[in-house]
Amino acid sequence: MAKELTSRNENYSQWYNDIVVKADLAEQSAVRGCMVIKPYGYAIWEKMQSLLDAEFKKSGVQNAYFPLFIPKSFFSREAEHVEGFAKECAVVTHHRLMNDPEGKGVVVDPDAKLEEELIVRPTSETIIWSVYKNWIKSWRDLPILCNQWCNVVRWEMRTRPFLRTAEFLWQEGHTAHATSEEAQAKAEEMVHVYADFARNAMAMPVVVGHKSPNERFAGALDTLTIEAMMQDGKALQAGTSHFLGQNFAKSFDVKYTDNEGKEQYVWATSWGVSTRLMGALIMAHSDDNGLVLPPVLAPIQVVMVPIYKTAEERSAVLDKFEDIRKELEALGISCKIDSRDTLRPGFKFAEWELKGVPVRIAMGARDLANGTVEVARRDTLSKETLSVEGIGAHIKDLLSEIQENIYNIALERRDSRVRKCDSWEEFKTEIQKGGFLLCHWDGTAETEQKIKDETKATIRCIPVDSFVCEEKGFDIYSGKPSERRVIFAISY
Amino acid sequence: MAKELTSRNENYSQWYNDIVVKADLAEQSAVRGCMVIKPYGYAIWEKMQSLLDAEFKKSGVQNAYFPLFIPKSFFSREAEHVEGFAKECAVVTHHRLMNDPEGKGVVVDPDAKLEEELIVRPTSETIIWSVYKNWIKSWRDLPILCNQWCNVVRWEMRTRPFLRTAEFLWQEGHTAHATSEEAQAKAEEMVHVYADFARNAMAMPVVVGHKSPNERFAGALDTLTIEAMMQDGKALQAGTSHFLGQNFAKSFDVKYTDNEGKEQYVWATSWGVSTRLMGALIMAHSDDNGLVLPPVLAPIQVVMVPIYKTAEERSAVLDKFEDIRKELEALGISCKIDSRDTLRPGFKFAEWELKGVPVRIAMGARDLANGTVEVARRDTLSKETLSVEGIGAHIKDLLSEIQENIYNIALERRDSRVRKCDSWEEFKTEIQKGGFLLCHWDGTAETEQKIKDETKATIRCIPVDSFVCEEKGFDIYSGKPSERRVIFAISY
Repeated sequence: MAKELTSRNENYSQWYNDIVVKADLAEQSAVRGCMVIKPYGYAIWEKMQSLLDAEFKKSGVQNAYFPLFIPKSFFSREAEHVEGFAKECAVVTHHRLMNDPEGKGVVVDPDAKLEEELIVRPTSETIIWSVYKNWIKSWRDLPILCNQWCNVVRWEMRTRPFLRTAEFLWQEGHTAHATSEEAQAKAEEMVHVYADFARNAMAMPVVVGHKSPNERFAGALDTLTIEAMMQDGKALQAGTSHFLGQNFAKSFDVKYTDNEGKEQYVWATSWGVSTRLMGALIMAHSDDNGLVLPPVLAPIQVVMVPIYKTAEERSAVLDKFEDIRKELEALGISCKIDSRDTLRPGFKFAEWELKGVPVRIAMGARDLANGTVEVARRDTLSKETLSVEGIGAHIKDLLSEIQENIYNIALERRDSRVRKCDSWEEFKTEIQKGGFLLCHWDGTAETEQKIKDETKATIRCIPVDSFVCEEKGFDIYSGKPSERRVIFAISY
Repeated sequence: MAKELTSRNENYSQWYNDIVVKADLAEQSAVRGCMVIKPYGYAIWEKMQSLLDAEFKKSGVQNAYFPLFIPKSFFSREAEHVEGFAKECAVVTHHRLMNDPEGKGVVVDPDAKLEEELIVRPTSETIIWSVYKNWIKSWRDLPILCNQWCNVVRWEMRTRPFLRTAEFLWQEGHTAHATSEEAQAKAEEMVHVYADFARNAMAMPVVVGHKSPNERFAGALDTLTIEAMMQDGKALQAGTSHFLGQNFAKSFDVKYTDNEGKEQYVWATSWGVSTRLMGALIMAHSDDNGLVLPPVLAPIQVVMVPIYKTAEERSAVLDKFEDIRKELEALGISCKIDSRDTLRPGFKFAEWELKGVPVRIAMGARDLANGTVEVARRDTLSKETLSVEGIGAHIKDLLSEIQENIYNIALERRDSRVRKCDSWEEFKTEIQKGGFLLCHWDGTAETEQKIKDETKATIRCIPVDSFVCEEKGFDIYSGKPSERRVIFAISY
């Protein structure tokens, strides 16, 4: 095979980078930290978008679009938020280029300096709440449930494709409510939309939980998260939903008149997932042969590769493939016939394996005579010979089976690496082996910080729907009393 | 009615701005020239995107994503392109903010100056061709047919919502081909995709034609355009498709090895439509009562307003509306029941008229008794009473009829303002009355420029599918010989 991958054991990080590039998902661009998402990678992202967008709309959310730029002064309004976000960002200071007086291309026109610098949005709470101020007067204007799909920029020092890039694509939902309870309920609803999507579409087990105060979003009173575990045992935060209290309403003076005529500050949530999900998807399932895609998100669910010696055989097999394609497409299955005449079947097999296509159908002259095809599964790499008769129904079932199997493998892999730990000495060794450690924590930011400083481990979440462990005990580090175990891990 | 509009006759420009704001389509933001697209406006844009995207994909185009930022030096590579584009743009010079040492919020960190400034993309030819260089080695890699949906920024001095904004949303297709013929054919194919969309979805008549050299895209050998006429008689360029020759391939050194082993530069096209289409849509059909939406693009195609005196009546009508809603939705018709209890029916009627909903259904106690509803059309403002029996099929037909009627009205309005003109004196008067003037032109940039300087009129296009006028004559300004008439107009 031409495009050889580094194996996971040899170098996990290189294995990931290899898949991203060799499966044609993304590549570095000439701009530091900014990636190009290639058509095959983007097609997966489009499937993610379309499924998530439908769920948002079902929950009453509407899409809108807010400006790319945020006036610098807006970042000074919400004190905590600026600490968390405004530092590493792209700053626009000028609005014109001019021909270099010395004749060397173009230079920035010094006369075109902006009065106030503009920041390329790292997230849009500030600009959106400056707009919501105009939209909200009375309780009748609430709730406001908006989402936008857009690009954001955070000037990260170390970047990795999809996982951490200077520019990335995401959706950010921003809702405004009359009461604290309603806002909190919305934040919870949305984290469960994410969890369902991760489990059902991405076939990726996730834990839903609350972030500890140290790990909260800048400006949030509560951050809910979905946490996944990658194959190297590291945790990956895959989506977050924040209850923002009245912080942004107060910073931007957004009040409503309640039904008794009294002015109240508005309650807020925000929630987002990004192209980071692509990184999670790659790392959750792939193997040393390349990408493994869950059928629900695979741009091509079935690829058909003809095997032939003569032009007649080729043409006869391709004709049969056309029939099968029609049958599959009628069942809503996306397929591709790989009719390229310059490549050998073995090369094609390896290429589609690398690209994670869930099912491969091969057919040669003998199959044609027998009315059979060879069906190969990407997840198990197993093959079977099947009758062409009824192939559509079979493939449809097989895709469901693969989706389920991929989830179960990921679930078993994760669960085998979740364990309780009650000794600090043990913790220091165990945490380096990867996986989730369920430990007692005294609830203080100080202890969490000390554990992080000594081991790099953080509290991934205080789980609410898996590994919930409401039992009394003693903090693993400080020895102080604790009410429940939380999940510690080294994370991406 | 609370939200009164300026009439077209009184002040056309204010009428447009009023509709944008009062129909909840968009509003100005705190950032100069950047608009907020509100949910109702964005829902129309989403419908446009979804229809166009499906057509692109049918033609073999795949979506991808390229960086927001372009290194400044890229703009120096293609000489003509930099002249046309690189001047008024957003320049990123720094990547960090810091707390103001004087304690006043945040300031730009002077130590975080970028080595090379980054330009927020005004269009992406340069960054994309720098990437295509890596993708293209052999004729087997061609064609490349990519599109991206994204935001772009051009620092416009005078902005108007949708029509001309500093940041706008668009799609930009960028294709790479082995031959000039294939690239030209793709540019033509895509302008016809735009024309079909404008006519069939937007119900907006457009002329397809070539731009004169003066009006071409910076760096193009040929620019194809769809030109529409607004109600004030001004022309609006609604979409363009460019044949770029080998200009970008040469600037970025993109070559392929042909099937005889010879190196060749690659041929290029690019093509785009933007949120400017929203402006065109508003101005093409709307009236002094507000927006008029063609059913194909209306987020809400049918609104139902109950009329009642008592709670019992309200509840009975709303129940009936639920039945009708089910019937309509089963036919793929989107509807909304306006059950708000705090507003009078007349207020609701005016609001939905303002928002351009194609069909309104009203029902009161007497209708309920008679098994009838009142059906009002937004395009003609006419009403009729119809039986609830069979209402679904009737509405479905009515929506098609409205779509067609809106197109025909726009077509008649436009055609009544297209005329030939053969005298320069007459031209100077006639052009100020608006509409398209079909005139002879000697084919030189000098003449076009002089006509523009004297009258502000430009050549909108050399038409290829409407008003084609291949006849010899004499240039209206210079008197030199001419082979055909072209379209002159004052434009947006």
